[in-house]
Amino acid sequence: MPVAFPSITIPKRLLMGPGPSEVDPRVYHAMTQPVVGYLDPTLLQVMDQIHTMLRTVFCTRNAATFPLPGTGSAGMEASLINFIEPGDEVAVIVGGVFAARMCEMVERCGGKLIRTDHRPGTTADLDRVRGAIRGKKVKVLAAVHSETSTGVCQPLEPLKEIAREAGALLVVDTVSSLGGIPLQVDAWGVDVCYSGSQKCLGCPPGLAPITIGERAVEVLHHRQRPVQSWYLDLSMIEKYWGQERRYHHTPPVSMLYALHEALRVVLEEDLEAVWARHQQCHRALVRGLEAMGLKMFVEKPEARAWTVNTVCVPDGVDEARVRASLGDRFGIEIAPGIGELRGKIWRIGLMGRTANAPLVLLLLNALESALGENGFSCPRGAGVAAAESLFHA
Amino acid sequence: MPVAFPSITIPKRLLMGPGPSEVDPRVYHAMTQPVVGYLDPTLLQVMDQIHTMLRTVFCTRNAATFPLPGTGSAGMEASLINFIEPGDEVAVIVGGVFAARMCEMVERCGGKLIRTDHRPGTTADLDRVRGAIRGKKVKVLAAVHSETSTGVCQPLEPLKEIAREAGALLVVDTVSSLGGIPLQVDAWGVDVCYSGSQKCLGCPPGLAPITIGERAVEVLHHRQRPVQSWYLDLSMIEKYWGQERRYHHTPPVSMLYALHEALRVVLEEDLEAVWARHQQCHRALVRGLEAMGLKMFVEKPEARAWTVNTVCVPDGVDEARVRASLGDRFGIEIAPGIGELRGKIWRIGLMGRTANAPLVLLLLNALESALGENGFSCPRGAGVAAAESLFHA
Repeated sequence: MPVAFPSITIPKRLLMGPGPSEVDPRVYHAMTQPVVGYLDPTLLQVMDQIHTMLRTVFCTRNAATFPLPGTGSAGMEASLINFIEPGDEVAVIVGGVFAARMCEMVERCGGKLIRTDHRPGTTADLDRVRGAIRGKKVKVLAAVHSETSTGVCQPLEPLKEIAREAGALLVVDTVSSLGGIPLQVDAWGVDVCYSGSQKCLGCPPGLAPITIGERAVEVLHHRQRPVQSWYLDLSMIEKYWGQERRYHHTPPVSMLYALHEALRVVLEEDLEAVWARHQQCHRALVRGLEAMGLKMFVEKPEARAWTVNTVCVPDGVDEARVRASLGDRFGIEIAPGIGELRGKIWRIGLMGRTANAPLVLLLLNALESALGENGFSCPRGAGVAAAESLFHA
Repeated sequence: MPVAFPSITIPKRLLMGPGPSEVDPRVYHAMTQPVVGYLDPTLLQVMDQIHTMLRTVFCTRNAATFPLPGTGSAGMEASLINFIEPGDEVAVIVGGVFAARMCEMVERCGGKLIRTDHRPGTTADLDRVRGAIRGKKVKVLAAVHSETSTGVCQPLEPLKEIAREAGALLVVDTVSSLGGIPLQVDAWGVDVCYSGSQKCLGCPPGLAPITIGERAVEVLHHRQRPVQSWYLDLSMIEKYWGQERRYHHTPPVSMLYALHEALRVVLEEDLEAVWARHQQCHRALVRGLEAMGLKMFVEKPEARAWTVNTVCVPDGVDEARVRASLGDRFGIEIAPGIGELRGKIWRIGLMGRTANAPLVLLLLNALESALGENGFSCPRGAGVAAAESLFHA
């Protein structure tokens, strides 16, 4: 039997990739509170407050609003499989890796997929979406708000009308937008909306907040067959989070403490102020990057997510070496592209505590240095100066 | 928009129910280490060591050994749906609520269920199991090692032979036994074995350790159809935990830190010493309870799980009021029966840090007092004296 390993000290990185983001020390501290049982009155109070605070950040009055005991992909899977029965037609608007993942989940649960692909880096061509579903009985229309693989923010309001006309539920991924980019679940007619804890909410990864509107709850309660998954059966999880408090799974208590504190951090600042901060950091970063001679991958400024900023790798630059320089010399982590964008873009996340003016300036300065080492010279200090001018405007 | 809630201080309870168990302060502290990205070299080191330490506690050399990003029920679901295709015959040995949950999962994923029910409080009648599967092509034989709802420990070695004869994979739930009751995954021919983080391992809830033997990996890699779940697809999760490090989900980093530290705590003591401690605490508790005039629900001593101790509620005693006394006056949490045993038994968990001589004595003393308040008088101090005599033997 091997001897136990020595303890490992985790180095502090500056998390400026597409998540996880920086975590407030208060959130770490919350996880040191003692674990209690699943019906402990204090835990139930924590859960009730999480429910209320999640409703605030989702901008919804939905009764069925709670975090699922899994990561963002568990939220995606739950948001699809609970509303799809074998043979149902499901339309997915695809512009990147995460929407493509939705398609895979739809097919695994027996849905008939209607997939429209839209050029990565652009918002969806809605006429093609309308054309693809015309005359079909569509159960679900699914889309990604902020596509973490491309940095595109898809406007959601036009999708409401398309979904309603088709008689479909509108299911939306807000993994990298919730708490960073304005989102109005009720006003925009989003029927099912899920996210992850580790992006703009600034909590460690491991929970998937979800909210389910009344129309969707009706569909859930009138299924012909049980949901394929017991673990992610929303009608059962709903009974634990609701008044019945019926046992389903042992909740990940420490993660709930973390989410509770992370939501408090968001709401103490005020949600609109949080959105404004994300917008300002995004605009300053873009201004700085452009002043350095770099090009944003998403061409239209209005199509850019404020949270996941995608930058084209200049010709002749080894993108991995630039990231290595940032990591080794500055302790900053940014991410490469994934899927077909591997090697072509960097992804810079400005989410939650990472969406912070000093960090934007630090990154621009570090990036200038890392690029210089790797054969791309920027006008000295231009990025920082351009960004600063916006912060001080 | 509501104002943010004030912070909540979680009271310290003594967790003596069937999980979550007491958590070592070192484990809480580990969660305050900084979150890093999913490919951070230090995180990969943590993961590799978790892998090695889990192999030690499972007593296996299985390469596919890792924690799933969900609670114990996610482990149960993954252990079934990955190995069952629609129409496959699946035999489940049922003696309580958790085995019954397995049956529900088998049916949801399209398996043909062969269920044998065995009297709660007893181990399985293996002749009936053999009879039920005779002549059938059984894909999976599933059983629960320590049935958390009844306190029965099912011997696993005889199941190996039954599974091999039937050509079936042996899938075993060790949620409340791993790290508390001897378990030899390889020697006992267990093909798939899962557990939860929050019982004998002494970690907060939220992870489900799993190990998958070669025979089972073969079955997984030769499926006709994709696994119904993307989130719990073991062949994809395996690629993240293995050499490929292929991105699947964002791992619940803080929970991995916690599990790493919890496993270190277990292995520093030495696994065999940990088992012996659980056995001794169990025997002392039983001796104490019996000296107080109480009766164990599981009659045969050799059929009792050392970890989940089930005690009959004496006639005329209001079980909920006794638990309330324990909670209000001593801060101790024990659990009621669930399912058909509601109101009939208490469940006392002695798992992980809770399996500790002073806590056993504290509980016996508190229980004597709580029972006295509720109309059941025990010989004064008899329980504590009997347990102490065993600890000091």
